[in-house]
Amino acid sequence: MAETFVSHPYNPPDLQLPDYVPCLLPQSTIVGVYGVATLLVVFTIWIFSGRCSKITKTDRILMCWWAFTGLTHIVIEGYFVFAPEFYKKKSPCYFAEVWKEYSKGDSRYVARDSAVVTVEGITSVIEGPASLLAVYAIASKKPYSYTLQLAVSLGQLYGDLVYFITAYLEGDNFSASPYYFWLYYVGANCSWVVIPTLIAIRSWGKISEAFIRQKSKKY
Amino acid sequence: MAETFVSHPYNPPDLQLPDYVPCLLPQSTIVGVYGVATLLVVFTIWIFSGRCSKITKTDRILMCWWAFTGLTHIVIEGYFVFAPEFYKKKSPCYFAEVWKEYSKGDSRYVARDSAVVTVEGITSVIEGPASLLAVYAIASKKPYSYTLQLAVSLGQLYGDLVYFITAYLEGDNFSASPYYFWLYYVGANCSWVVIPTLIAIRSWGKISEAFIRQKSKKY
Repeated sequence: MAETFVSHPYNPPDLQLPDYVPCLLPQSTIVGVYGVATLLVVFTIWIFSGRCSKITKTDRILMCWWAFTGLTHIVIEGYFVFAPEFYKKKSPCYFAEVWKEYSKGDSRYVARDSAVVTVEGITSVIEGPASLLAVYAIASKKPYSYTLQLAVSLGQLYGDLVYFITAYLEGDNFSASPYYFWLYYVGANCSWVVIPTLIAIRSWGKISEAFIRQKSKKY
Repeated sequence: MAETFVSHPYNPPDLQLPDYVPCLLPQSTIVGVYGVATLLVVFTIWIFSGRCSKITKTDRILMCWWAFTGLTHIVIEGYFVFAPEFYKKKSPCYFAEVWKEYSKGDSRYVARDSAVVTVEGITSVIEGPASLLAVYAIASKKPYSYTLQLAVSLGQLYGDLVYFITAYLEGDNFSASPYYFWLYYVGANCSWVVIPTLIAIRSWGKISEAFIRQKSKKY
């Protein structure tokens, strides 16, 4: 069957996307569904974590974060990695719509840039399940809890660096407009810069404290 | 001045490298100098670490590794990151020769692939100094010693994943011959897969032990 070329809203305009099907769901629906799903996950984990014995409020908030980020990595980012032809979807598939919409902020997604696919692959396959394991590790006070949180947070930060630096080196010209640049490329990613940084610093400190205590008890 | 196009030994053959200057040093010199420098660093650290009090043989070996990998990251890889035109060098510069030679195993170096430049940038600017800090942390038994070793090792492994997966996604056709593929692309990188994996597992275990001991002393 011959490929059909449809104009698309992405930047650069000469990007070839054979059989592209325009967004079928409005932005408000895409963002709204994600927002409601997030609230549901956070609410569920908050209620569930309240039943754990001797758990601090900080640990309950962290459990909510790890459940939210883990499911985002596995479900949303996992779909992107394993559905390379998402932009050709003719019937409304929520996950395909997410990536058609997000690509307005970074067309490397729809163009299947290898660095972006690689970072998303590592994030969805390794960091996603590891994030869910962190929920369990915090709840059951596992001795590897802080190590796991540090490892996943550093992985997320490494992914951010690869994501932003490769875009910079390739000319930083992948957003359809400044609106999408700030809302999607900067806005949607900033939580995954700020929160992993805070968790990495906290986990690092907690591990150091454990070694200081171990040392002081020896003498 | 008009650019001159010289044939080069890299794959793909149609790669455009204006003003390319062929390798000026033989492979044996390039590898030999690196080998001798490595032995010197390892020997120096081994002697120096023997003067540290109550230090195990494993920790002394680890200090040698961190000094070697840290200097490789900062000096060799740092040169690549900040000398984008290394392949045009007319007078023999050892570091330029290293990368002209290594590019026979992976032409993305000479072609300045953004994923490769990004990974090398993170490695040289962040992981290089952090590796040298690990030498000091082990010698002075800092409470963050295992955390730092875990963090840098995981960073090296994340870099490996980005390096190998992007090459795979882009067709894995960047070696001048199977000889260079196995010697440089696989051989030169395998130490940075095996050793960081072993260190990450060991550090993870040591941190878990510290938390188990802390918990057992509470009750």
